[in-house]
Amino acid sequence: MITASICTIGDEILIGQITDTNSSVIAGELGKSGIRVVEMVSVGDDGREIFRTAENLLAKSEIVILTGGLGPTKDDVTKGVIYELSGSTGYVDDPRQLEIIHGILASRGLDSLASNRRQASVPDRCDVIPNRLGTAPVMAVRFDEGRYGHKAVLYSLPGVPFEAAGAMPDVMSDIRKSFSLSEIHHKTIMTYGIAESALAERISSWEDSLPENFHLAYLPDPLKGVALRLSVYESASGVSPVFSRETDSLKKILGNVIYSEDGKTLQEVIGQILVEHGKTVSTAESCTGGKIASMLTSVAGSSGYYSGSVVSYSNSVKENVLGVPHDIISEYGAVSPECVAAMAEGVRRITGTDYAVATSGIAGPGGGSDGKPVGLVWVGIASRRRTETVKFNFHNDRIRNIERFAASALNALRLFILDDIND
Amino acid sequence: MITASICTIGDEILIGQITDTNSSVIAGELGKSGIRVVEMVSVGDDGREIFRTAENLLAKSEIVILTGGLGPTKDDVTKGVIYELSGSTGYVDDPRQLEIIHGILASRGLDSLASNRRQASVPDRCDVIPNRLGTAPVMAVRFDEGRYGHKAVLYSLPGVPFEAAGAMPDVMSDIRKSFSLSEIHHKTIMTYGIAESALAERISSWEDSLPENFHLAYLPDPLKGVALRLSVYESASGVSPVFSRETDSLKKILGNVIYSEDGKTLQEVIGQILVEHGKTVSTAESCTGGKIASMLTSVAGSSGYYSGSVVSYSNSVKENVLGVPHDIISEYGAVSPECVAAMAEGVRRITGTDYAVATSGIAGPGGGSDGKPVGLVWVGIASRRRTETVKFNFHNDRIRNIERFAASALNALRLFILDDIND
Repeated sequence: MITASICTIGDEILIGQITDTNSSVIAGELGKSGIRVVEMVSVGDDGREIFRTAENLLAKSEIVILTGGLGPTKDDVTKGVIYELSGSTGYVDDPRQLEIIHGILASRGLDSLASNRRQASVPDRCDVIPNRLGTAPVMAVRFDEGRYGHKAVLYSLPGVPFEAAGAMPDVMSDIRKSFSLSEIHHKTIMTYGIAESALAERISSWEDSLPENFHLAYLPDPLKGVALRLSVYESASGVSPVFSRETDSLKKILGNVIYSEDGKTLQEVIGQILVEHGKTVSTAESCTGGKIASMLTSVAGSSGYYSGSVVSYSNSVKENVLGVPHDIISEYGAVSPECVAAMAEGVRRITGTDYAVATSGIAGPGGGSDGKPVGLVWVGIASRRRTETVKFNFHNDRIRNIERFAASALNALRLFILDDIND
Repeated sequence: MITASICTIGDEILIGQITDTNSSVIAGELGKSGIRVVEMVSVGDDGREIFRTAENLLAKSEIVILTGGLGPTKDDVTKGVIYELSGSTGYVDDPRQLEIIHGILASRGLDSLASNRRQASVPDRCDVIPNRLGTAPVMAVRFDEGRYGHKAVLYSLPGVPFEAAGAMPDVMSDIRKSFSLSEIHHKTIMTYGIAESALAERISSWEDSLPENFHLAYLPDPLKGVALRLSVYESASGVSPVFSRETDSLKKILGNVIYSEDGKTLQEVIGQILVEHGKTVSTAESCTGGKIASMLTSVAGSSGYYSGSVVSYSNSVKENVLGVPHDIISEYGAVSPECVAAMAEGVRRITGTDYAVATSGIAGPGGGSDGKPVGLVWVGIASRRRTETVKFNFHNDRIRNIERFAASALNALRLFILDDIND
């Protein structure tokens, strides 16, 4: 199996000012083609250190992908490293990238600065893959067996996440030309509403009975629940029926705790069900403050089934926009089943959707009390025929509580819709 | 200067299924205390590989922090590595962690399972730092100079981001007891509305005139703009007046492109201004679909100045809830200055806030046309006295466009409020 390593470059990563998202995106793309990532490293904007790390990784794996350090500013030093690694003797302008640079700047009504044009200048012993989304091109350096004991290619990608991701299709096609790739198969089964340890106990004997060449991983995520990822790291043409058989066994154990069998998120699954049945949904959010709306609208095509949200952060918006009776708030409080029921019914009424979901809770850090602690959320769901309320308790910080509130509300909505449709 | 390395563990990281956020959080904490992170590595759930990486990092740096691989499931193998590294001779239960485990499960109404209790069992030659937020404790292994040529401590933290972050204060106080720390100073100046390359040219001579021991980094982020981070990696008691002087020079060049001098985000700065002047704001979002609301409400205390949002994803919500005249939408379209002006005025009217900001645009991938391409957004801002509209064009994918739309709207709101207040 072909192996790869990823090295992301930037002082801003090492001091923790930004989170490296390139590594996971690149690893995901490599993995889809059966390339196993054996290591990810992040180093600072230090030429010697980048050089040393690149050499280490080239000794370990056939493919090395660097990102970052290609910007027009003075702290970006990767190009010099590519020059040394490739044994270049000078710099040359890449005409395709120069054209892209002019085009990008012109489309934004800008003149190209000397620092922009310099981005098209590359060491003469590397291959260029043009970057259509930004000014810095991808550079590829190829090594024969003599150098590291195996054939190897190093790719240097821009650090801007959007550009790095955008470059990957071209990088993958270059990789496919250079290496003969074996196969890897993944199946990702998504669950919601059960903790990792309880899930592990519940499916323990199923797990023990898995074929030997299967690997199972538990991947908890606050917005997605626990994903179960089944992998076979070998060429296996008959893997698909095995995946189906194992998934069927798992469904018998877990029922509708499983919400997708292909890695789809809660918001994607809900969108799919709504489209399939020609239904629509709206939301009324208090404590989640737009997070549910943001998750639903992150799906392309969501305007077909999602009409909108009233983020009723203040009680006056709950009353004046959603029509929650003042008495409900004064008698039961905003964080109550009565209030979320009225919120869900209210937003469904003003938007005219088939379903509506509403949240009210206490995200923290302040605002909790004995009866209504930080981490408590009430979720209300309404259809034409009925309204349901359900509560959840979490024990996290503000941001994480908001995420769990939103995901739990979406999962409750999913279960409600499934019930309603199967009625 | 004391150096540190971070190693995050998990197959799910290497295959790109999750993004490692622990490294940046931990690096941020270490950096605040003047510890320089020299390398970050991610490896899979493979005991030998974790062992080898830990030894490499211990040879390079005094402090090594591992996260992950401590879960109750079968793919978690870090504890065995700690056993080997520490030369332990057996496992012992840590009574403090056992008590925490019982408490956590009881508070959630659960019995503790054998797999939960096993989390409190640790190799006998490591020190335990209890983890109050989860079941797996922090383990510390101490090495004298003989082993790696310098004194070293390795900490093994849980992989759950919330728990890893929560463990850092105790880990830092343990580090402070073990090492005498030098100082590091950062000042982060936030800018919005100027591209990295243009910014670099504009402040080039200022940058050249910086004192020699200062380091400047450019950190672009779609939600935050370009941060300029000034660092001095030395003990320097007189650094504060130099920071102030350099910031003042920069302000003369950049004016209100600078929105904070302490790393605060746009939403935090807006909250600060609103609180200071006793003003309130509401939002009406079409294309940003709740992203602005979500950003504003991520700030603790936002309920004091933020009343809510109408996420008017459908035109009927724009008309029926926000009161946008039907004629405006039919004549100019939903993505128009006329529509966002009416949306902002509408939401300000129904919420009764001092300010309101509205967005309508085309996030993509579909829905664009020649006159209104994907990436176009109109932003409307209203106060009692006036309404302004402004448009932006971006060239990204859906998620990134939504982020840029939201951040641009917040920045436009900030400039509007500053104008209004200084009037």
